[in-house]
Amino acid sequence: MKLGKRSIKFENKPILLDCASIVGPKEKSGPLSNFFDRCIDDVYFDEKTFEKAESKFMKEAITLAINKAGISKNKIDYVFAGDLLNQCISSGYAIRDIEIPFFGLYGACSTFSESNILATSFVNAGYASICVASASSHFCSAERQFRMPLEQGTQTPPTGQWTVTGSGATVIAPYEKQINKYYPIVTCATPGKIIDMGIKDIANMGAAMMPAAFDTLITHFEDTGRTPDYYDLIITGDLGILGSKLLVEQMQKYGFDISKIHRDCGNLIFDCNSQDTKSGGSGCGCSASVFCGYIYSMLRKKEINKVLLISTGALMSPVSLGQGESIPSIAHAIAIENEE
Amino acid sequence: MKLGKRSIKFENKPILLDCASIVGPKEKSGPLSNFFDRCIDDVYFDEKTFEKAESKFMKEAITLAINKAGISKNKIDYVFAGDLLNQCISSGYAIRDIEIPFFGLYGACSTFSESNILATSFVNAGYASICVASASSHFCSAERQFRMPLEQGTQTPPTGQWTVTGSGATVIAPYEKQINKYYPIVTCATPGKIIDMGIKDIANMGAAMMPAAFDTLITHFEDTGRTPDYYDLIITGDLGILGSKLLVEQMQKYGFDISKIHRDCGNLIFDCNSQDTKSGGSGCGCSASVFCGYIYSMLRKKEINKVLLISTGALMSPVSLGQGESIPSIAHAIAIENEE
Repeated sequence: MKLGKRSIKFENKPILLDCASIVGPKEKSGPLSNFFDRCIDDVYFDEKTFEKAESKFMKEAITLAINKAGISKNKIDYVFAGDLLNQCISSGYAIRDIEIPFFGLYGACSTFSESNILATSFVNAGYASICVASASSHFCSAERQFRMPLEQGTQTPPTGQWTVTGSGATVIAPYEKQINKYYPIVTCATPGKIIDMGIKDIANMGAAMMPAAFDTLITHFEDTGRTPDYYDLIITGDLGILGSKLLVEQMQKYGFDISKIHRDCGNLIFDCNSQDTKSGGSGCGCSASVFCGYIYSMLRKKEINKVLLISTGALMSPVSLGQGESIPSIAHAIAIENEE
Repeated sequence: MKLGKRSIKFENKPILLDCASIVGPKEKSGPLSNFFDRCIDDVYFDEKTFEKAESKFMKEAITLAINKAGISKNKIDYVFAGDLLNQCISSGYAIRDIEIPFFGLYGACSTFSESNILATSFVNAGYASICVASASSHFCSAERQFRMPLEQGTQTPPTGQWTVTGSGATVIAPYEKQINKYYPIVTCATPGKIIDMGIKDIANMGAAMMPAAFDTLITHFEDTGRTPDYYDLIITGDLGILGSKLLVEQMQKYGFDISKIHRDCGNLIFDCNSQDTKSGGSGCGCSASVFCGYIYSMLRKKEINKVLLISTGALMSPVSLGQGESIPSIAHAIAIENEE
């Protein structure tokens, strides 16, 4: 049901039956290494191109999530997925091989929460029994598509971010599927609105996306009547160090102190100092792999019980920036909670 | 609710409150000229680039659809939209300016029925009061992105298709919004599954996409118990002349005669002989503009009462084809019917 101005309450309490995450070698060297299901040492993942490798990350993450959930593939009604590549070929070819009916999405780096909102919406409404949501990104395919070929060795400024190589996938099922009260429940969501504050610097995505995260977060609090202290963790997708700092400051001005409970997937996945990842991780695969690896594990262990995930996306392209446009951004929020 | 193996029944009978279509000069010269809300003579639509023009087609189509429906913009809860451009910039910038919460989609030329399925799903489930669905394409932006720059004057083989310049938008509302029994109802949908029969010829999309349309159509009949004679019109998105012929033949082999009630938006929008559009129109804007212009007008006048729209999409990219991949395709079906 509709909740407030721009939120959705999932009154039938769909559950997050399981998750899987697969990442690349740089993510393996990062602080969250132990939380990922698989770390692949070869950025090509035994494929001939970076694009095919990215697609394989998604295909394997979805397959693993379904297996971990103990469900046979033909019980999955729909996959909701997307990625950053032109014409979303990572998802297209991954899902072709998986043979599950498909809704293709493009929300840039907000795709992971977008896909989870739509998958949950379908399960909650009874349109589907079980759905999968996924997103992927790959440092090498993203660099050559959005910036420069890797061979050129272009340097990144301090505000720039490092695209995560990896994918995450969730399996969403009806409440009745749970045997005990163990599974986290997707309780509500606040879909995003596009916000564009005129920033044109492709090497400063955090600043470009922060206003969208702010808008979604404020709307979420208004619609649900919740305040920051309701949550154990408010986790943004890839605002990075700079964008996160700006978000906390902006929320403070608005009267909300999120400093203690806010984290950013882009900040968590790399040790920016030792790994030289500048302002932090980014990409659809960033919030996907961090949520499906680290956050879901904490939820299952009840180390945390109430999480708001806000994946953040920048909807520009190299063509639109070349034509003088600024960076429109969007942030979708979804709440995942353990029952008391 | 779930219907059969892969279909959805919209039991609350959401209505198609209104539509709008805006097309370019070549579409204006075609057989459906009188059915479009607006025909723009300038392919640049007063913008500096083809991409900005395409975005304007969508923005104006959505704005016009909302105005025609007599609804103020802030009553629209969500827009579901997508396009063919890298990172879907046509939709991103159009919706930025419209300021309505947004779900970005990528389904290639199947995007129009995908967006309508999701928008209807949201209204039917009560997640939203009113939603908008839209898709766009532009011959000039598509040519330079997928094929060659226009200046090169590359010739198209007979199996090739001509990307439609235009956009269409629908306004989906709850059943209660209707004053009399006049508005067409979105009754059910059969989302698509990716089918890839190994075709690699980018100039033969009709043949590549036909198997996806076939799979969705057969599944639709199985899930709903309907047969071709249930419908007054089964309209595919952009199979073109060749793909349409193949679909009718394939259905015949399966025991279903759709020859009398099947039409294809790509065949209807241009006169292929006089307009030199080879195998017909294509692009997300093809089924969007033909449905919102021609088909919706016939539905409202009760010239036809039961329509199954199957927009068809090819999920490859120039990069994936360059890497030796074949063309994965998908087709989403949605049924729109007048109440008896």
